[in-house]
Amino acid sequence: MSEVYAARRERLRERCTAGGSATALVSRPANVRYLAGVAPLGAVLLLGSGEDLLVCGNPPENPFAEVRPDDGLRVHELPSPGGDPAVAAADLAEGQGADSLAVEEHHLTVARHRAIGSVAPGLRIGSLGTAVEQLRVIKDEEEVSCLRIGAEIADQALGELLESILVGRTERHLALELERRLVDHGADGPAFVTSVGTGPHSGRRGHRPTDRRVEEGDFLSVCLGASYHGYRCEIGRTFVIGTSPAAWQIELYDLVFAAQRAGREALVPGAACRDVDRAARQVLDSAGYAEGLPVLTGHGVGLEIDEDPQLAPAAMGKLDACVPVTVEPGVHLPGRGGVRIDDTLVVRPEADGGPELLTITTKELLAL
Amino acid sequence: MSEVYAARRERLRERCTAGGSATALVSRPANVRYLAGVAPLGAVLLLGSGEDLLVCGNPPENPFAEVRPDDGLRVHELPSPGGDPAVAAADLAEGQGADSLAVEEHHLTVARHRAIGSVAPGLRIGSLGTAVEQLRVIKDEEEVSCLRIGAEIADQALGELLESILVGRTERHLALELERRLVDHGADGPAFVTSVGTGPHSGRRGHRPTDRRVEEGDFLSVCLGASYHGYRCEIGRTFVIGTSPAAWQIELYDLVFAAQRAGREALVPGAACRDVDRAARQVLDSAGYAEGLPVLTGHGVGLEIDEDPQLAPAAMGKLDACVPVTVEPGVHLPGRGGVRIDDTLVVRPEADGGPELLTITTKELLAL
Repeated sequence: MSEVYAARRERLRERCTAGGSATALVSRPANVRYLAGVAPLGAVLLLGSGEDLLVCGNPPENPFAEVRPDDGLRVHELPSPGGDPAVAAADLAEGQGADSLAVEEHHLTVARHRAIGSVAPGLRIGSLGTAVEQLRVIKDEEEVSCLRIGAEIADQALGELLESILVGRTERHLALELERRLVDHGADGPAFVTSVGTGPHSGRRGHRPTDRRVEEGDFLSVCLGASYHGYRCEIGRTFVIGTSPAAWQIELYDLVFAAQRAGREALVPGAACRDVDRAARQVLDSAGYAEGLPVLTGHGVGLEIDEDPQLAPAAMGKLDACVPVTVEPGVHLPGRGGVRIDDTLVVRPEADGGPELLTITTKELLAL
Repeated sequence: MSEVYAARRERLRERCTAGGSATALVSRPANVRYLAGVAPLGAVLLLGSGEDLLVCGNPPENPFAEVRPDDGLRVHELPSPGGDPAVAAADLAEGQGADSLAVEEHHLTVARHRAIGSVAPGLRIGSLGTAVEQLRVIKDEEEVSCLRIGAEIADQALGELLESILVGRTERHLALELERRLVDHGADGPAFVTSVGTGPHSGRRGHRPTDRRVEEGDFLSVCLGASYHGYRCEIGRTFVIGTSPAAWQIELYDLVFAAQRAGREALVPGAACRDVDRAARQVLDSAGYAEGLPVLTGHGVGLEIDEDPQLAPAAMGKLDACVPVTVEPGVHLPGRGGVRIDDTLVVRPEADGGPELLTITTKELLAL
């Protein structure tokens, strides 16, 4: 794997050089992990014209043996406790003769940025922008493979939950049980806070589980994901509790299902992100649910659960092949509940069979 | 409760006015919660000369009904999706005629800070420093009560785990079970990532649970905490697995226990933070464990698990009454494991009986 990280750093170096700064400081943890393969707590990556450095705090988060960066990278551990690796890295850069340093202004705080300027007054401090995030959008097959395994784990955890008795259990307990099952099946942990919403809470994006218990006749919405080797996927489903769904439940479910399918079918390389959003959104719009729709109908996933691209009305840019995204429209009716259906898919050319569905749990309306 | 938050904001307002800026923008989530009683995701608090505003994103994280700030505070929801509440708040401040705005430079990123400057060019942007964190150090009895309940919950969760069979179970599973029990007993959730370390992993601060299984003869270190109404406590204990601890295990345990007791006994109002650290540290030092000791032997707790004050060799400042802190010395022997003992206590005057121990699980060396 080490050549993968070295190649990623090389691509970033080319961008930096083109942008006028040969030296860059990467501090956002997911970006550090993308470029170094590891991201001990607080560690930053100094990308220089010569050797690249992973600058770690003191003591390092884990014993040194667990930090296994690839070969082209040297680990620099701060000599004494309490220092800021970003500040130390700037000092090292100046010592190596750099004259400028591009930093992640969307991650560094004002106070840290100022400390960097103070310790290295000879450096011109510039901006790296979101260069690393942009590199991260298109995944290689190794990354997709991690997402695929994570999705399998989430499917398994969800499938097992559906076999158990649900009525009478609280949202919190169901969420905890799902998280335990994710770990049972080999996840690093949950990809994000598992959401379980029952009755009036169902269909709400990001609903935090409460002590409400599952009741007969409820909608039950579940959204979970596994983190596997750092890669985070997402699946969301809505079920009905009891033997026969009410007419309004079937109608709402069919509508959201149609919207979600329209979004999935719009996932082709070259499609504008806003067009994918519109494909899903207009199904809900034209059924009279224009108000209260979520801000986005999907987003990229990877080392973070919410990455570029955004599938939203004002989103810029087009989809590329090998970009994993969620498609997750939903409708929530205040006081009654609602439906969300959420898949993780990888954009693929039609010649390769179209979008690859990673989360394969059925989207039929199950009555449990 | 609403008058509590209004009084806190009033104290902050006095500090700001004394500091030369009548208007302040609080963005750090724990600080927003401290001053407003709620902290919807992304919300910021604008503390003006007139009315205070809680500026929330659009859509707000939870339906509006769940945001219940106290009476002296008005909620301002952004009119359209995607905006940054901090930027919107600066715009509002300028619109209200403010000429300066003190911001949290240790929390705002460079990019957000610049956006604030752009939207409100007429405002002088100053620094609020860590004024809110300083207000948060001394707790009122309501806050201590939340910590006390959290500690009871953590004690219960730990006590139940000790009654179950441990040999053969993995660190990950034990950690998950503890977290489930925390929620069972009424916690909002774990206060931080539960740490379970067995055998060679025992005694390591912040050890992330792995798939290693508990074996006969192991040390088993556990560190957990409950979050209750937002307040976070911490307890850490080390046990021995099997019928009879080895001589080195008893010796090491007694040593760490003596260090931890020395730290606890040094907790008196007016004591220098570094002296409390030294009290615990010198016990370990003089037994030959000067190398590899943790950076700190304790820290404040509250709305965050790691707050001021720090109990460390270079810490400045003195302890006050009603300050909750951890005392958590430990020794880890690479390849063998080690011992950590961690309590949460509230500093109290001797006349009130001295430090109040919140985490009451026994510190005898239990063989399980």
